Amino acid sequence: MRIENQNPIDWRFSERAAQLQSSFIREILKVTQRPEITSFAGGLPSPATFPVEVMRAAFDKVLSEQGKVSLQYGPTDGYPLLREWIANSLSTPDSKILPEQVLMTSGSQQALDLLGKVLIDEGSKVLVETPSYLGALQAFSVYRPNFVSVATDEHGLAPQSLPAIADGARLLYALPNFQNPTGRSLSLARRQELVETCARLGLPLIEDDPYGALNYRGEPAPKLLNMNPDGVIYMGSFSKVLTPGIRLGYVVAPLPLARRLELAKQATDLHTAQLTQMVVYEVVKDGFLSQHIPTIRKLYGDQCQVMLNSIEQYFPEGVQWTRPEGGMFIWVTLPEQIDAMKLLDRALENNIAFVPGAPFYANEPAKNTFRLSFVTVPPEKIRAGIEVLGRLIKEMMAA
Amino acid sequence: MRIENQNPIDWRFSERAAQLQSSFIREILKVTQRPEITSFAGGLPSPATFPVEVMRAAFDKVLSEQGKVSLQYGPTDGYPLLREWIANSLSTPDSKILPEQVLMTSGSQQALDLLGKVLIDEGSKVLVETPSYLGALQAFSVYRPNFVSVATDEHGLAPQSLPAIADGARLLYALPNFQNPTGRSLSLARRQELVETCARLGLPLIEDDPYGALNYRGEPAPKLLNMNPDGVIYMGSFSKVLTPGIRLGYVVAPLPLARRLELAKQATDLHTAQLTQMVVYEVVKDGFLSQHIPTIRKLYGDQCQVMLNSIEQYFPEGVQWTRPEGGMFIWVTLPEQIDAMKLLDRALENNIAFVPGAPFYANEPAKNTFRLSFVTVPPEKIRAGIEVLGRLIKEMMAA
Repeated sequence: MRIENQNPIDWRFSERAAQLQSSFIREILKVTQRPEITSFAGGLPSPATFPVEVMRAAFDKVLSEQGKVSLQYGPTDGYPLLREWIANSLSTPDSKILPEQVLMTSGSQQALDLLGKVLIDEGSKVLVETPSYLGALQAFSVYRPNFVSVATDEHGLAPQSLPAIADGARLLYALPNFQNPTGRSLSLARRQELVETCARLGLPLIEDDPYGALNYRGEPAPKLLNMNPDGVIYMGSFSKVLTPGIRLGYVVAPLPLARRLELAKQATDLHTAQLTQMVVYEVVKDGFLSQHIPTIRKLYGDQCQVMLNSIEQYFPEGVQWTRPEGGMFIWVTLPEQIDAMKLLDRALENNIAFVPGAPFYANEPAKNTFRLSFVTVPPEKIRAGIEVLGRLIKEMMAA
Repeated sequence: MRIENQNPIDWRFSERAAQLQSSFIREILKVTQRPEITSFAGGLPSPATFPVEVMRAAFDKVLSEQGKVSLQYGPTDGYPLLREWIANSLSTPDSKILPEQVLMTSGSQQALDLLGKVLIDEGSKVLVETPSYLGALQAFSVYRPNFVSVATDEHGLAPQSLPAIADGARLLYALPNFQNPTGRSLSLARRQELVETCARLGLPLIEDDPYGALNYRGEPAPKLLNMNPDGVIYMGSFSKVLTPGIRLGYVVAPLPLARRLELAKQATDLHTAQLTQMVVYEVVKDGFLSQHIPTIRKLYGDQCQVMLNSIEQYFPEGVQWTRPEGGMFIWVTLPEQIDAMKLLDRALENNIAFVPGAPFYANEPAKNTFRLSFVTVPPEKIRAGIEVLGRLIKEMMAA
């Protein structure tokens, strides 16, 4: 029965497939699975925060009461009650978000892919922060845009730099809250300036917001979405506030774009699992997140403070770092002559991992930067790991 | 706080977004949700076949015993034990399939999208059956190929027509088992000729096989994959043998392609839900499908026979139809002057729905064709509905 394969296939991949590279982070994560490693590299939430029993009970309830519906094909745009819940939770007295604007996605990574599919042609100008989220660069890259890096300063994205570079741009992609990788958040004044500038330029503004609810001080900042629902595309996710392994996110878009995204989603994977959406609705509908999120804030906030204190104590003069008030990451800038890749080699020899900053830049990388995550490592290991890192940095600076 | 939007966004979509159309089937399905409609239009499996209690128990077990792992991010290629189970279930003594060849996807629709992403450039020649699966045409269309229709006869795809048209083609997409929409299956001799021809031409051959296990007579036919694992890309799914709402499929590819598909998947949605994969592994690992699939075969096989008998009884001379031995669909060819869209209008007035054949053609549509599904309608309604359809066809033929 087996056929002799006379002409082995000479695979011809698409030009876009040539852009595909494995995420550097995912490669590092493979190395850092070893238990002796203290890993500040991960972008994974802490499993200590997963409400396993609540999820188990919700799966049980939905499958017991609505088994056949939950296991059947569902609508492309998502489970109506969950879309309505999301629209309500995002609405403010000033800006009403409609369920029709909400498209459920398989994690917010899929929203990035769909946005790329619908908005980016080969060579399209796409504006991104400096640095920006690696997964977004990866998702958009497939559609072969021309990335233009928007200047940032210590307060994050600098809106005043936009008019000079925005001409013909298809979109601006930003993470205004506790940005990945820098941990920076935009001030209220800067948010207003950013949204006003984009509105004036007619430039679609993507607000990627996986960490917005994870603020460790004060109240969450207002969303860009609510400042201009006609011009802002909002991306949210249940990964950081509930659990990531269920792959559930959403994108909220002005109606003409929402409809295109829905069509793209239909061609891409028909719809996101109906069962998962019904279960998450069951979990969130009576306010579970408002009790649950404070427990995540407490855990991450304490660990963030431990890491900041340790950095203050152990990192030498000449090193700079961000002081995030939420999210998962601290961003470190070494003296210019020090290459964070080389520091990583030495750190791994000492069983410590982090992510070098270079892959987060769409254009010229700052090789003297790196990202630290504080969410999955307990306080005593944070202190010990940062102490070692501090020593290694001092040694490299002395050399 | 709300910003005045002086310049409403003039949305500029990508050129590929212009290709996006809603599936005609999904549009019809919206019409046919009404309870008074007898719908032969759906491609949905019958919820009567969903093993709800087995799924409920498996979710409960996985979440009770491995809650934190199942709810965390997982590997892009999928849950290792399920990939191994799939590789083993597809292996034969002659052809061993490796777990590394298996990529888990969010339904097999996503495998189509990933294959398009990795293999199709704008203008690439892509060979498809005449007619072919609408969802595949839709998924590939996004990447703007040049579709070339491969001739078919009453036995399905005609391999002898390939050498004249295959030059430079990126792939041939085929459903050899109980094809959607025609219900046709390739004979053993034709399978061998097809696989040999593609191997000789160095032409990658995609075997899409959602219905292969749903054979109502005899043994399942050998898979093209096992005839030439180095040249055949195989797509499978749990949608038709377990449940579709969980969105779980897989693609099995020669290693160089499998690696590219994994990278494309990473950029697209990181990975498919870890929990779902662990639950499905829990369900299938001890042989559940070998008891469960025969119950689906019995239900669908009986309804298929009722529909074939009713067509025999009620459809007038001059109408032709396929006699599938498995799957979900019967394909009807009317006399050439009769437009199935017009028949649909009259059928809907009589509360009966089906899917006209035209959207299943990549190039010139045969407007006198339509597809009937027999899986979700009980026998007495099949008989009554087919009787009405027969009457309407007779009236149109007489006019």
